[in-house]
Amino acid sequence: VALSSFCSATSGDEARNRLLMREKMMRLGGQLVLKPEEELANQRLGALKEAEMQEALRTGSIPPSMHFFQAKSLIEKSAVFNILKKMPKGAALHVHDFSIVSVDWLVRNATYRPHCYFCLTPRGTPQFRFARSTPPTLNTTECPEWVLLEKFRKGLPNITEFDHSLLRNFTLMTENPQATYANQDVVWAKFETIFVAIGGLVSYAPVFRDYISQGLEEFYQDNVLYLELRTMLYPVSTLLGILDDPLFLGYVHTSLRSAQVYELNGSVYSPEWSVRLYEEVARNFAKEHPGFLGIKLIYSDHRSKDASAVTKSIQTAMELRAKFPGMVAGFDLVGREDTGHSLYEYKEVLMIPASRGFELPYFFHAGETDWQGTSADRNVLDALILNSTRIGHGFALSKHPAVWAEARKKDIPIEVCPISNQVLKLVSDLRNHPAAVLMAAGYPMVISSDDPATFGAKGLSYDFYEAFMGIGGMTADLRTLKQLAMNSIRYSALSEPEKQFAMATWAERWQKFVAQLARGPK
Amino acid sequence: VALSSFCSATSGDEARNRLLMREKMMRLGGQLVLKPEEELANQRLGALKEAEMQEALRTGSIPPSMHFFQAKSLIEKSAVFNILKKMPKGAALHVHDFSIVSVDWLVRNATYRPHCYFCLTPRGTPQFRFARSTPPTLNTTECPEWVLLEKFRKGLPNITEFDHSLLRNFTLMTENPQATYANQDVVWAKFETIFVAIGGLVSYAPVFRDYISQGLEEFYQDNVLYLELRTMLYPVSTLLGILDDPLFLGYVHTSLRSAQVYELNGSVYSPEWSVRLYEEVARNFAKEHPGFLGIKLIYSDHRSKDASAVTKSIQTAMELRAKFPGMVAGFDLVGREDTGHSLYEYKEVLMIPASRGFELPYFFHAGETDWQGTSADRNVLDALILNSTRIGHGFALSKHPAVWAEARKKDIPIEVCPISNQVLKLVSDLRNHPAAVLMAAGYPMVISSDDPATFGAKGLSYDFYEAFMGIGGMTADLRTLKQLAMNSIRYSALSEPEKQFAMATWAERWQKFVAQLARGPK
Ligand SMILES: [Zn+2]
Ligand SMILES: [Zn+2]
Repeated sequence: VALSSFCSATSGDEARNRLLMREKMMRLGGQLVLKPEEELANQRLGALKEAEMQEALRTGSIPPSMHFFQAKSLIEKSAVFNILKKMPKGAALHVHDFSIVSVDWLVRNATYRPHCYFCLTPRGTPQFRFARSTPPTLNTTECPEWVLLEKFRKGLPNITEFDHSLLRNFTLMTENPQATYANQDVVWAKFETIFVAIGGLVSYAPVFRDYISQGLEEFYQDNVLYLELRTMLYPVSTLLGILDDPLFLGYVHTSLRSAQVYELNGSVYSPEWSVRLYEEVARNFAKEHPGFLGIKLIYSDHRSKDASAVTKSIQTAMELRAKFPGMVAGFDLVGREDTGHSLYEYKEVLMIPASRGFELPYFFHAGETDWQGTSADRNVLDALILNSTRIGHGFALSKHPAVWAEARKKDIPIEVCPISNQVLKLVSDLRNHPAAVLMAAGYPMVISSDDPATFGAKGLSYDFYEAFMGIGGMTADLRTLKQLAMNSIRYSALSEPEKQFAMATWAERWQKFVAQLARGPK
Repeated sequence: VALSSFCSATSGDEARNRLLMREKMMRLGGQLVLKPEEELANQRLGALKEAEMQEALRTGSIPPSMHFFQAKSLIEKSAVFNILKKMPKGAALHVHDFSIVSVDWLVRNATYRPHCYFCLTPRGTPQFRFARSTPPTLNTTECPEWVLLEKFRKGLPNITEFDHSLLRNFTLMTENPQATYANQDVVWAKFETIFVAIGGLVSYAPVFRDYISQGLEEFYQDNVLYLELRTMLYPVSTLLGILDDPLFLGYVHTSLRSAQVYELNGSVYSPEWSVRLYEEVARNFAKEHPGFLGIKLIYSDHRSKDASAVTKSIQTAMELRAKFPGMVAGFDLVGREDTGHSLYEYKEVLMIPASRGFELPYFFHAGETDWQGTSADRNVLDALILNSTRIGHGFALSKHPAVWAEARKKDIPIEVCPISNQVLKLVSDLRNHPAAVLMAAGYPMVISSDDPATFGAKGLSYDFYEAFMGIGGMTADLRTLKQLAMNSIRYSALSEPEKQFAMATWAERWQKFVAQLARGPK
């Protein structure tokens, strides 16, 4: 485009239109050519979006500029949101196993089952344990007394209030998040205690089975047909082998605490058993839910652990991947990057599979940080160097133009989780989310929800709303949404034939969605 | 760089180092080769920065992640900040005329002069007027009663408290900015009332003269040798000709209210007179301040006005530019972009000079918005199309990769004003400021302070601190700072010979600064 000096309105407008067109084509989804019916649907969606944007401009605020806890009820009233709920969104590629089910299910269902014991730690965090008789109390400072919940509830004057207090312990939601979570340390501390609190509930085998099924249900209801779950599978090795009693887990650093899947009689299950359970539940779920495509697992360990512990996990990951090639997609490291080990510190360990000629795909969380120039920030570079298939968050990627260019050549997408980044205090106004830059430049990405239950969200729609109205701004349209949905299949760990089938299944639903949207209201 | 699969630690490290090096070279200042003494100085600065960063990582917060009003006292304790104060920073290219002097000077000096009348509007905003006798009260709802300040102060039990209340009306500073300024509307409303409040003080000719000189003094003390001031010069035309009495100004929309420079007897001065005054004050100032290079003016109008009013301003701008080619650098449009007219709406008007073969340089504020896809957001595109010499803020530029690439080819820098963007609520955590992306990519930029007095800042050092510690993160070093200082001369409106002289003057001071820094403490 020649933009030399100009003397007429025409040449200025020409240069302007060329630039506008170039920006349009560059954007994520900008290359898509909509069919006539999609154009109609896009117009209708655009009109609703425009109306909500105008209202937002008038009031000076829009849900993505507010904290999600305060924006949630506003989002639920949005016509755009209600369309996004109906939209076939493809796959959820970045979600963690123990945060896929709305927490009120945990309270209403899991805590109301028989044989459920609970206790309160001195800090007020509840712990749960299913057992035939009162579990042993090995560490009185951590959990002084186990109480049978059924009996306890009977003695309460106000059960609803008690159940509410449980709910509050199962999510980060609070009325004034700015005051409750002064900084990232505070919010991460609470974040990790939640997994401690629900661990004993969810890892009880009968609950676990139903939990998975319920999770798939919530995503399916949200028009998500396929999931890749980050999971630690809670093998004994992740507990560093320092537990005396496999029934009770209270002696390791909070962030490491985790539960093996167990039965009422105290017997525990192996990671293999858990993989088979996931497989079985997903298979059964698919039978009753037309179009559902299944799940895969990304075996994960915690980045607070030392290299030798991660070496064991890599070993387990390779074994699981060899045993369940269609089910275990690869490996990841989870937990807070700013305080955990960097990928570079694990480099020798993470190169073991390749050095043995074993293909273990990586799906690293990388660059989930505001600190530019730290090792956590350089994780985006190391994820690229370590051949990561995708990058979890990649929040710091836009500050690394060379990595970004190289990763783009290798077609490595980022998994953008807007609400997670906001709640965990990386960014307050989602219109400033760094993915806005990458989206405008057409960098490959998918939208996901990370730990929706913990953030008070559900499925993917809330995050799609934030991405569509906040990150994408006025310029995001049906092309953006279509590309995001197709990306979620394209960049999944599905095999090529699986992808083709998934894309066809999605396309059929997309076509129906578009037809309905194009037809107009209701 | 080939990043194919690798089997050895070495090849991975090689690829990694190549990428790290490429990022280092790409960054703003990355191409600079430091002299041995600069290397030493850089090491010393780096050690101090590292220590502050480690402390910040430990506590989880760093001044740039906090609101400036809360961070200011912390910044003042920083060793890095104290080095930045001493650093020769070159030029301030984005500052507005009536916010270059710390407001306590206004209270201590201007309001204590004889013949100063004041009144309080029903909203509690003070207004000032110097006059021989009580000024007429034409609009009782706006300013019910003029009181002689000297007399009023005598009757006060606590003058200090009163003076503090004046101070509070002259800046946006407040202890809890999050609560005081709920959104951008609120903070902009207060922002614009400040200029109404101080207008009658500053535009009194004797104060005006001293105000300019005091402003130059504050920047000179902060090691800034040259300034380009955005100024409206307050000609009658900006008041839309609807004032009955030139002595009193209260009948136009708040954002349009402005004062002509006036004398005690009520006579008023033309824009030409003001330009000459600026010229004279700067000349006198330079005589007494070695190394001071002077000022230029960027004549500005308010973007709330309609096209015909701006047509008149363009006319005035051309006349002033023709009459004072060494003093009037060009034209800009100021005021809030989200609520004002877009550059595109003024397009016909803004093309008048070029269509007449008149070269009127533009220095447009553009993209000072969070709203992607609006006309304010597209101002960055239109600034490019309209051949803007620089872009004020360019906050939205990173979301426009095509504009960014084109503007880079044309070597159009952005004027980054970190504290302004934070206080006016575009971004809360300056580590997420979009200039981080552009800085990492080596996009040309300068750092400026916009309205330092209004934000409680002074000179450029506070903004340099935010840029160096926040926007640049751990990766910014002495190269970054040197490039920013040199950019401020390179991208100024100085003529080529003036630039050469300025660069030599700056370089001499830089060399001394580096020598002192390299020598170590004190
Ligand atoms: Zn995650
Ligand atoms: Zn400005």
